[in-house]
Amino acid sequence: MNEPPARLLAVALPELPEVQPGDDLGRLGAEAWWRLTVEDESLAPQPGDVLVVTQKVVSKAEGRLVRLADVQPRPEAIAFAERWDKDARQVEVVLRESAEVLRMERGLIISRTHHGFVCANAGVDASNIAAEGVLTLLPEDPDASAARIRERIEEELGVLVAVIVSDSFGRPWRFGISDVALGVAGFLPLDDLRGLPDSEGRLMHVTVVAVADELASVAELAAGKTSRRPLVMIRGARLPAGEGSVQRDVVMPQEADLFR
Amino acid sequence: MNEPPARLLAVALPELPEVQPGDDLGRLGAEAWWRLTVEDESLAPQPGDVLVVTQKVVSKAEGRLVRLADVQPRPEAIAFAERWDKDARQVEVVLRESAEVLRMERGLIISRTHHGFVCANAGVDASNIAAEGVLTLLPEDPDASAARIRERIEEELGVLVAVIVSDSFGRPWRFGISDVALGVAGFLPLDDLRGLPDSEGRLMHVTVVAVADELASVAELAAGKTSRRPLVMIRGARLPAGEGSVQRDVVMPQEADLFR
Repeated sequence: MNEPPARLLAVALPELPEVQPGDDLGRLGAEAWWRLTVEDESLAPQPGDVLVVTQKVVSKAEGRLVRLADVQPRPEAIAFAERWDKDARQVEVVLRESAEVLRMERGLIISRTHHGFVCANAGVDASNIAAEGVLTLLPEDPDASAARIRERIEEELGVLVAVIVSDSFGRPWRFGISDVALGVAGFLPLDDLRGLPDSEGRLMHVTVVAVADELASVAELAAGKTSRRPLVMIRGARLPAGEGSVQRDVVMPQEADLFR
Repeated sequence: MNEPPARLLAVALPELPEVQPGDDLGRLGAEAWWRLTVEDESLAPQPGDVLVVTQKVVSKAEGRLVRLADVQPRPEAIAFAERWDKDARQVEVVLRESAEVLRMERGLIISRTHHGFVCANAGVDASNIAAEGVLTLLPEDPDASAARIRERIEEELGVLVAVIVSDSFGRPWRFGISDVALGVAGFLPLDDLRGLPDSEGRLMHVTVVAVADELASVAELAAGKTSRRPLVMIRGARLPAGEGSVQRDVVMPQEADLFR
């Protein structure tokens, strides 16, 4: 592997209009990138660039929405909601989106989703939704979502960029959420440096870098939580070549997990 | 809070000479930043810039080194090392650096350090060390390390930048390591957005962003694992104002931790 580039640049693309179910997010992203390029032509998409898209707009475009009015909560959801002053229908949706509930305490549900992600409330969210009484669910297959956006960007702009669908996850042992990759297209989400010499020429034994997750964090910092800028381009990252998948490459089978 | 800036730039500073115990890392950092500025004067340090320094060089400069030849392993360390083909003296050092061992399996020890960090092998490391038979330990007080570097940078360059001491940690549920902050100086490591309106004007309830950890990940991507560039400057990040501490602000007391 070559030395990585010495500069990393992340730029939030211009605001999107409110995304609706059925919207072509790849096309909206291409248009936003084109508007950015009009402001600064050096930012025109290039091979090696990454487009990071937050889960929320992907879920909206894919119609991964549930109206609270349509939800019948089970007794367990009603009891938990009453105890912690939550909406029982929202609790019900979180339980439906969970393959396995790990903790259910203090109004928060930590669970493993059907994709294998461990996160709060199964990724079900009510914030940043224009319609009251509507929840977003995680995309069904975030790797496929990323691949579709990538293809549309190429059709619209003629450049094959890498794409990440990101979300903000909490973690054990440390306060604060950080953004991670739910899905990727156009590169491998892990940079496997095992067997490469370190700066002293010694073999590095256990270094597999979570490049896609780190890139998601870069985008979070560039975009900001309160903004309407769900798209960020990143230039100058080392991208391990290959057709990667968060589902296949990053989600850890329980038996391999010593941190659990 | 204002909208965050729309551009984030991370640039690895030029290579450092091999860092030795007693070296003035703040001065070395200031020199490296000065050399970068000679190449590109737009990169001269400004208030609001962040300097991310990897733990390894901090530990070396602070003399946080242990020679394997000086270590007498306890019987538990010998047994574990024999079973997993490890160096019993290295296992011994990991146990000494651990306040609590969480897992000891397949040659890997997951433990909580005296600082409260949960990581593999208590942060004890043999890679990227020029001297054979020498291990690095984590800095005793990484927040204080960051503060000292910050002061020296100000003395040398006349600018108060923010400083992060970073390290690469694994995590549960997902393959790959990502860089996090062990210590900070000059800002708050968490951006507490609770109570702020989101893009729809709705209150965001649980959003506390791990800004320092995300910045550490930015630096990792800009520097690369195999390089001799342990220093990275970052410009354009939102930095919550205040005198923060990873130890005090980020490390989570067990009773607050629903992800555990």
